[in-house]
Amino acid sequence: MTNTDSGLLPAQPFNEQDRDAVYRAIMTRRDVRGEFLPDPIPDEVLARILVAAHHAPSVGFMQPWTFTLVRDKAVKGRVHQAFEKANGEAALMFPEEKQSTYRSLKLEGIVESPVNICVTCDRQRAGKVVIGRTHIPIMDLYSSVCAVQNLWLAARAEGLGVGWVSILDQNELRAALDIPRTIIPVAYLCLGYVAGFHDRPELEKAGWLPRLPLDSLIRQNGWSGRPDEDFLSTVRQGQAAMAQAHSPAG
Amino acid sequence: MTNTDSGLLPAQPFNEQDRDAVYRAIMTRRDVRGEFLPDPIPDEVLARILVAAHHAPSVGFMQPWTFTLVRDKAVKGRVHQAFEKANGEAALMFPEEKQSTYRSLKLEGIVESPVNICVTCDRQRAGKVVIGRTHIPIMDLYSSVCAVQNLWLAARAEGLGVGWVSILDQNELRAALDIPRTIIPVAYLCLGYVAGFHDRPELEKAGWLPRLPLDSLIRQNGWSGRPDEDFLSTVRQGQAAMAQAHSPAG
Repeated sequence: MTNTDSGLLPAQPFNEQDRDAVYRAIMTRRDVRGEFLPDPIPDEVLARILVAAHHAPSVGFMQPWTFTLVRDKAVKGRVHQAFEKANGEAALMFPEEKQSTYRSLKLEGIVESPVNICVTCDRQRAGKVVIGRTHIPIMDLYSSVCAVQNLWLAARAEGLGVGWVSILDQNELRAALDIPRTIIPVAYLCLGYVAGFHDRPELEKAGWLPRLPLDSLIRQNGWSGRPDEDFLSTVRQGQAAMAQAHSPAG
Repeated sequence: MTNTDSGLLPAQPFNEQDRDAVYRAIMTRRDVRGEFLPDPIPDEVLARILVAAHHAPSVGFMQPWTFTLVRDKAVKGRVHQAFEKANGEAALMFPEEKQSTYRSLKLEGIVESPVNICVTCDRQRAGKVVIGRTHIPIMDLYSSVCAVQNLWLAARAEGLGVGWVSILDQNELRAALDIPRTIIPVAYLCLGYVAGFHDRPELEKAGWLPRLPLDSLIRQNGWSGRPDEDFLSTVRQGQAAMAQAHSPAG
């Protein structure tokens, strides 16, 4: 490669196959709950997806994440209990006519998946004043979320499913894993090989909410501005083409 | 493809080339500040990376994001002014001996990059009670961050650099873009083709902070537990191998 004197690597686009592989990971990634297989995850594979997580962007390069792997059945059981309690509370928050649908949804695979990972954020890791966090303190939590998304996409490329369990009381999760009060649990993830990936997000398939048309979510030069119709038409075509390319028939 | 009756797509790992393409996007993604070129971004390319963002995971499938493109010089100028003000305040927060280093760092490319994108979160988009957000209300902001990371990786595959500007007062950013008070600005991004990508994160190259050894960030079955030495050794080898594969010499 060139440009190494300046420490700059060449910036060409990926070739078409490589680019499409990145888009395939993005478009076919799913939040997995019900399809986990018990097959063990090889150490090399788990290591690679953790490296991917660790190379997420982080504010001030603070790398605030910690990855707590959970393989022990008793520990998973404690987390599952915390989920059950929270999920019972959650069901009651929905309008009565939606409660039975809610209860019919499978929302986690804590026990079935061979490995769970709790991704946390240590807000003190780089001291009090952090470049880029001076005005938006939440940036370190956002960095940990970027690590989650890297992990998720890497897992998809490895053929592994990931499910993010967010129906948990944070303090009960802390208690189940002995996480100190100063550490923020950002994501509790279930990982494993899967029987298959759903062709669309499950809540979309269940008719809970529709996929929004992307062109309705784009503004320009300010909240009340809109891009020109040519661009919006390109967006509509792009959304249709990418959905098609990564559908069962695509 | 098979399994379409159940709506399940096959779950094999990607082949090696495709898998490595995903890892290449992850490992060579950079936070770009100083290398933007003025070349315009074709509509098709910008559309694809927005589709990638839109296919991020979102809590309760609420898709809470909006993308405000900024191309207008005057609008960019207002955001840049907000950055300058915040950055001046930020410099003074560091210990005196670090202030000159801080001031020497280039921390944004707002004006030079052809397109800026403000990614926001509309917390009300799916009503008050959202599946998965009942116990951790911040989940919708996290969903918007996942969209940012998808966009960033897609951009890398397209040969586009992205820089996340977080040294901004949120209310001044809102004012510059007429964003309503109920909408949360999550990320202000600068996008464009680049002269090259740095071989390592700039703060690492500048000696601000080192890359942490990943094995030190992994725990097991609880905060005080550690995975066995075999696994940690595999992690060390994986981190070294992936860094090497995506280095200038790799």
